[in-house]
Amino acid sequence: MLKGHGGNLSEMALRFNVSPCSVIDFSASVHSPLPRQRVRQWAAEAMKTVGNYPDPEYRRLSEKLAEKYKVKKTNVMPGNGSSELLYLALRAFKPKKVLIVMPSYADYADASRFAGAKVESFKLDEKDSFRLDCAKLSAKAEKFDAVILGNPNNPTGGLIKKAELLKMFSKNLSTLFILDEAFIDFLPESESVAGSLKPNLIILRSLTKFYGIPGLRFGFAVAKPSLIDKLARYREPWSVNCVAECFAIKICGDVVDEDAERAKVARDGKRFCKSLSAISSLKVFKPYANFILARIIGKKTTAPKLQTALIKKGFLIRDCSNFEGLGPAYFRMSVRRGVENAKIVKAIEELLG
Amino acid sequence: MLKGHGGNLSEMALRFNVSPCSVIDFSASVHSPLPRQRVRQWAAEAMKTVGNYPDPEYRRLSEKLAEKYKVKKTNVMPGNGSSELLYLALRAFKPKKVLIVMPSYADYADASRFAGAKVESFKLDEKDSFRLDCAKLSAKAEKFDAVILGNPNNPTGGLIKKAELLKMFSKNLSTLFILDEAFIDFLPESESVAGSLKPNLIILRSLTKFYGIPGLRFGFAVAKPSLIDKLARYREPWSVNCVAECFAIKICGDVVDEDAERAKVARDGKRFCKSLSAISSLKVFKPYANFILARIIGKKTTAPKLQTALIKKGFLIRDCSNFEGLGPAYFRMSVRRGVENAKIVKAIEELLG
Repeated sequence: MLKGHGGNLSEMALRFNVSPCSVIDFSASVHSPLPRQRVRQWAAEAMKTVGNYPDPEYRRLSEKLAEKYKVKKTNVMPGNGSSELLYLALRAFKPKKVLIVMPSYADYADASRFAGAKVESFKLDEKDSFRLDCAKLSAKAEKFDAVILGNPNNPTGGLIKKAELLKMFSKNLSTLFILDEAFIDFLPESESVAGSLKPNLIILRSLTKFYGIPGLRFGFAVAKPSLIDKLARYREPWSVNCVAECFAIKICGDVVDEDAERAKVARDGKRFCKSLSAISSLKVFKPYANFILARIIGKKTTAPKLQTALIKKGFLIRDCSNFEGLGPAYFRMSVRRGVENAKIVKAIEELLG
Repeated sequence: MLKGHGGNLSEMALRFNVSPCSVIDFSASVHSPLPRQRVRQWAAEAMKTVGNYPDPEYRRLSEKLAEKYKVKKTNVMPGNGSSELLYLALRAFKPKKVLIVMPSYADYADASRFAGAKVESFKLDEKDSFRLDCAKLSAKAEKFDAVILGNPNNPTGGLIKKAELLKMFSKNLSTLFILDEAFIDFLPESESVAGSLKPNLIILRSLTKFYGIPGLRFGFAVAKPSLIDKLARYREPWSVNCVAECFAIKICGDVVDEDAERAKVARDGKRFCKSLSAISSLKVFKPYANFILARIIGKKTTAPKLQTALIKKGFLIRDCSNFEGLGPAYFRMSVRRGVENAKIVKAIEELLG
């Protein structure tokens, strides 16, 4: 496991000797639409089941997921965060050569290497604002057993057009595509390819980002039944605990006005992006999810130094130095409430301006 | 993953068209000493942290475990049930040849095969009441990269003497021993080898059995730091969710009078065993944990048939036909409260007597 994921508020607070409560966490890209009262109520319900093992097949949960995402229950597999399913997919399919679109979530490469694969990077170029040239990737894909990519991609925030993705999948039927849609909930469901499954496609989705429950860990895979069956053979027993299971079932009941939440994040993100772009020593990349990647222009400071300076002002950002294909000039912030976003912009201005 | 673990009350209820609430579950070997009020209180506390990722290093949790089990924090690694750690250990150490003491928990073999190992069984003999001849195992061990065994062993319930185990570990230093102590909490802590770590020993422990929280999933590994470090390199991120993390920390605070609970289970188990042994068509094996293995004598019925008949009377037992080394005559029951144990004895008497 890589050291230095985002969202590690407790460690950072310890390192800089500040109280975690006094720090606003912009390092984890997590939205929080669930009212506290509801969370408490669901928790109480979930706790009634701690004395029993979860259903090893997660049948009710799979049915609910299928209903919500308009697929068949044989198309879904619940997991302990989408991370479990990423590692599981690589273990089950054992690709020898994996092509990974980078910069991206570091565990794509870790999971591939642990499964014995040779990893090659398909590098996104800052000159193209880290936009993916799908035709170019498609041309390279056939030489690989598997391709892993994120949409929207973390940490660059770019979005790939659905039609281009589907064309690529169809053109490379002997290559397995693992498409990480952990942040797709911040876009209309029509942007997801879950409704257009292919025999060589495994989609990873997450409920933790959009619904604000990263502590509970819950994700799921969407794929054709033959692929789901193969994952099931390699799955470890009871990996989703009863609280995550209960919350996921509840969330499938459409408890949140998703369109309104999406609109809110988009609006706040646009405003956040605009104010950040006004800082002359920052290059800001257009975000399609709930986080923004930025680069410090010039030699004045680095992302690690900015992180240290900001934590003393009560803000935690994600230093992106350890992403392959980025470097010490890059950092990522999640889109939070307007007031909080305005506060960090002011703090960054003071430090960089 | 094997189909047909114990503790799958919901599936069995569905299959036999009975309400899960009307069935007493003897199939999962789970004790429940935590008062409901306390569980509710902890749940409320845990829920305050769902919005943050768990600490990826689980530092506070590791410290608490180390304190409770009198080892160093570098000796422990928390996991999503001891199952996660079993699979992780085999993935990390990649033994080519694994010797497994059988009959035992089916995932020992599954986890070994998934990691690419060739599995051989070391068979326990019913003639010896399934007791392990440690000297014999020790003599065979050196030809294997790893040996997996449970103590007390599930489903036979046998206990191995600590001195014999330690002798075997010391004699076979080039063999990795994975010792599953998931049920050791039902015996005094002095029976565990956690205080006598060896460079070739990984101990798997669980909080779900003794503390009655199988739905939450929590286990931990105890080993020398070099082994723990290797496990850490292969570990998947955030596998223990915040509720399991919170409960494990609380449990480490010695919230239960463990001696009293152990004495209670031992007393109830002894009584249960005695009444079962009085049924002439049953052979009952002496239990050291909170479950009892029994064999149906003669051709009158089988464990699957007995299971079906019992579920209609409101009891779920674990049919042990699918354990390698057992067969359709064997079944397992957990030790529950005295009244419940008496009820199932009566029901079995009516069916077999």
